[in-house]
Amino acid sequence: MLGDFNVRTDLALEAKESFAEDDVEIRGVRIEEAADEEREIYTTIVRIETENGARIMGKPVGTYITLEAPNMSSEDEDYHREVSEELAKHIRALTGAGEKNVLVVGLGNREVTPDALGPDVISNLHITRHIAKEYGKASLDEKASLVSAVVPGVMAQTGMETLEILRGIVRETAPQLVIAIDALAARSTRRLNRTIQITDTGINPGSGVGNHRDGINADTLGVPVIAIGVPTVVDAATIVNDTMEQLVDTKEKRQTIREKISPHLNTMFVTPKDIDETLKRVSYTISEGLNLALS
Amino acid sequence: MLGDFNVRTDLALEAKESFAEDDVEIRGVRIEEAADEEREIYTTIVRIETENGARIMGKPVGTYITLEAPNMSSEDEDYHREVSEELAKHIRALTGAGEKNVLVVGLGNREVTPDALGPDVISNLHITRHIAKEYGKASLDEKASLVSAVVPGVMAQTGMETLEILRGIVRETAPQLVIAIDALAARSTRRLNRTIQITDTGINPGSGVGNHRDGINADTLGVPVIAIGVPTVVDAATIVNDTMEQLVDTKEKRQTIREKISPHLNTMFVTPKDIDETLKRVSYTISEGLNLALS
Amino acid sequence: MLGDFNVRTDLALEAKESFAEDDVEIRGVRIEEAADEEREIYTTIVRIETENGARIMGKPVGTYITLEAPNMSSEDEDYHREVSEELAKHIRALTGAGEKNVLVVGLGNREVTPDALGPDVISNLHITRHIAKEYGKASLDEKASLVSAVVPGVMAQTGMETLEILRGIVRETAPQLVIAIDALAARSTRRLNRTIQITDTGINPGSGVGNHRDGINADTLGVPVIAIGVPTVVDAATIVNDTMEQLVDTKEKRQTIREKISPHLNTMFVTPKDIDETLKRVSYTISEGLNLALS
Amino acid sequence: MLGDFNVRTDLALEAKESFAEDDVEIRGVRIEEAADEEREIYTTIVRIETENGARIMGKPVGTYITLEAPNMSSEDEDYHREVSEELAKHIRALTGAGEKNVLVVGLGNREVTPDALGPDVISNLHITRHIAKEYGKASLDEKASLVSAVVPGVMAQTGMETLEILRGIVRETAPQLVIAIDALAARSTRRLNRTIQITDTGINPGSGVGNHRDGINADTLGVPVIAIGVPTVVDAATIVNDTMEQLVDTKEKRQTIREKISPHLNTMFVTPKDIDETLKRVSYTISEGLNLALS
Repeated sequence: MLGDFNVRTDLALEAKESFAEDDVEIRGVRIEEAADEEREIYTTIVRIETENGARIMGKPVGTYITLEAPNMSSEDEDYHREVSEELAKHIRALTGAGEKNVLVVGLGNREVTPDALGPDVISNLHITRHIAKEYGKASLDEKASLVSAVVPGVMAQTGMETLEILRGIVRETAPQLVIAIDALAARSTRRLNRTIQITDTGINPGSGVGNHRDGINADTLGVPVIAIGVPTVVDAATIVNDTMEQLVDTKEKRQTIREKISPHLNTMFVTPKDIDETLKRVSYTISEGLNLALS
Repeated sequence: MLGDFNVRTDLALEAKESFAEDDVEIRGVRIEEAADEEREIYTTIVRIETENGARIMGKPVGTYITLEAPNMSSEDEDYHREVSEELAKHIRALTGAGEKNVLVVGLGNREVTPDALGPDVISNLHITRHIAKEYGKASLDEKASLVSAVVPGVMAQTGMETLEILRGIVRETAPQLVIAIDALAARSTRRLNRTIQITDTGINPGSGVGNHRDGINADTLGVPVIAIGVPTVVDAATIVNDTMEQLVDTKEKRQTIREKISPHLNTMFVTPKDIDETLKRVSYTISEGLNLALS
Repeated sequence: MLGDFNVRTDLALEAKESFAEDDVEIRGVRIEEAADEEREIYTTIVRIETENGARIMGKPVGTYITLEAPNMSSEDEDYHREVSEELAKHIRALTGAGEKNVLVVGLGNREVTPDALGPDVISNLHITRHIAKEYGKASLDEKASLVSAVVPGVMAQTGMETLEILRGIVRETAPQLVIAIDALAARSTRRLNRTIQITDTGINPGSGVGNHRDGINADTLGVPVIAIGVPTVVDAATIVNDTMEQLVDTKEKRQTIREKISPHLNTMFVTPKDIDETLKRVSYTISEGLNLALS
Repeated sequence: MLGDFNVRTDLALEAKESFAEDDVEIRGVRIEEAADEEREIYTTIVRIETENGARIMGKPVGTYITLEAPNMSSEDEDYHREVSEELAKHIRALTGAGEKNVLVVGLGNREVTPDALGPDVISNLHITRHIAKEYGKASLDEKASLVSAVVPGVMAQTGMETLEILRGIVRETAPQLVIAIDALAARSTRRLNRTIQITDTGINPGSGVGNHRDGINADTLGVPVIAIGVPTVVDAATIVNDTMEQLVDTKEKRQTIREKISPHLNTMFVTPKDIDETLKRVSYTISEGLNLALS
């Protein structure tokens, strides 16, 4: 079980796996898995259906779709197109039919490479709301959504909670749906930059590379919030803890170790050295998925 | 007189100069000039006091302070410090005494070099609001303002009017004052990157490199708006027109010329080739002026 | 005829057009035109075959291929792919058959938007030389070239002539071919960001947005140099001059006008306000053309 | 002792400390320490004087000056100025008296935040070589060096070894001295972004965030190379190993642990979440130190 130590994952899939050794079913949590071996895209859907499930999983009630795409960090354009299409399919399923007024939010810090996923996705997005406002809805494809976007920045840059900024913009521009893009923390380095999580629960406290303090979700914004995230970092304390867990055999010793891990590590993250190249591809794939789903 | 042609300046100083040949006093407009020869900083204050003055000048009633600092594009650090201090003095005079809750807005497009003044200024600003919120006002200097900041982006990037974004943020975070930084269009290339205009009238339709459609001012935001601008471009149509005016002698011919200038030029601007280096210095000087005024 | 005034174009096509009114054939210059109406790509090949032709045209002896692609600044991905393929075809024809060791050079200043074409193209290029060096040539496709790339920066950033930097790198890494990408100055605003010029003459003094002083060509580097350029700016003096030419009827008056145009304008350029979005698409199209031609 | 495991530090100071428990003197290695308590700058000079010392320390013979400046990541401008002056003093001492022709090299990847130190330092440097070439040496201060600079990029971007690029440029432009700036890997997270190492040994294989394979030093470039580095990351394998070392008591167990640490971690690094803000200040401080030393 996830202790009160700083072991952290933003992936529902990994929260589930921490119980895997017991092979128990968790009441209130349903799992579906699908492997598209030919396309090498693996899908896991975690449905947290009850408050009990939510408590155990440490994540709100809702649907968490995880696409694992092992080659997503490679240069293969056809593969990326397939991942974009798969992503678009899931976004459409979560958003429901018909065009919408959608605000896409690029969370994170554009100045810190592994946290720049959100801003990078926005920069390749097809923005249409102002065109429809100026030339009429007829200037767009019939089923196209009206897309607006914002990169709110992080608190050290703005002095404001991201939620404050978004709440203001949502009230003023009245989108029917918010889609928030964010870089996530995973527990396993193997998942970095090859996994996409799509959830209808929004962004919740403690998630994201920068560790949001306030949730960005239907409760706080007043409109549905879909969150799309890719794990780009592992918390430094988590990586030390997890390596130790594999090596140390008694429960007491583990507890001792946890207590000794420097709290200093909580302000640090672990990320791959080639994060720049990888993220360029991944963010483009997500932009294309959104462009497909919303146009 | 400024015709209905696309001759455009965001500087009150230049709007005034277009009457200079007549050497008339304009009713409702007062001018004060001060030259600090030693420091090479020249100050002109244009006060538009009546609606008549506003109509003739093509600018709202209010105070327009222009600092001309011929060496602002050079590398001299001491000179820049003096300009920052001069700027801080004027900001303090316009904002009144006592600490404030201030939202600084970096207008413009960070991807287009001469339009990136606003975003660049924000990146060197001391942001303090979140610190005071977290650790209490006592964690800051006694007279320091609470500073928050935002870079809203431009409509092609967001699909939203800048005003929509700012109105939302202002309602949510309730600053007592907004300071908007923007790159401006001048009429004369000689003024580019060496002139700072400070005004208590905010940003008004048609101003800024990107030509805002909605005003960002006390009327539209509900709080006082101070605008700080530096001309970084001349509109291409303006430069063609003005060069012609000097060369052509009859009023009829001028009219003919204006009609023939390609409307295509209205989507173009003129800027110096070394705009990157110059703007880096100028934006730093303005950041420092704000940091001095607000801390 | 191009006077000794600062009317400047880096496009052979436009140099030719300045004679068009006379409809003369220039000895030593051959022109071929091809219009692919369906794909909306228009090709002009200017072959300067003699020193006489070179003198009149103000460009070295060689082949200048111009692709005019009116929709290149739009978002249509299929269209961009077609332009990339057309570009690849011409690059392959100029480089000859068989794999090569190719150094691609991204000229220009990445900090000035319309001058960032070269650096932007490099950032989407598939770099392979180090892979072949590490894992053997067999790790690449059989006919793939070994691609290396450099963004040398501009003189204000480096203190060095670009030629000095490139000459050093070419001597050390011994490529068989250099491909230089550069933003160009056109004479007509209508050509900006929708025209690609490919030439086997390299980059010659006075070309490029930043106006190179030393040529970057087979003479100065010792290996063939193909240059690929897109006009992104018009010189400010040129735009003023050309607009005037259309309006003023006598030759004497034109001469007077030229003399009066401020030399100050020579340090300024004219560029479209949406240069950021347009250039992102154009640079991607050129990267893809190079990736197709070299892989 | 540093094992053959991936425990890595680019700081001579830390290499020394790994022997500290034994409190032995290492033959061939001399240490001087100086604490400026008032200014809070702590200096350690490690002189590796013999090949024996070099072998034990795992670093070439030469002088390694380490400035520890605990407040370097804070906003205090006066403090930064003092660090710049201290740095300038050491650079001057290592370079000898009199003006020089100096090439400053910004190593690392500008797209990966903690590796962007080198490129960031270059962007604030006063470049003068081209001015002296154009207007004569008299246009600069009498004792000013001729400064040129280059950001060569990393192998994944260029396909070339950094050494190839630099060797070419050095041959072509003949500087008398190269100063290379690079982000380093430390062993302790406490040292990140508050330590500057200055050495006359250049950059050696295995150092730098990106782990250079070829040395950049007097042997390989043919001119003296001073390297200035700041540790911005800890290798992920190192952080796991070191935390364990503190917790595990027997030598055998340590060996077991080392063997089990995933080799995957070798492609990962650990860095603080606020690396963007910190690095902006640190790189500016180093630029200013260089500007003082070279002007």
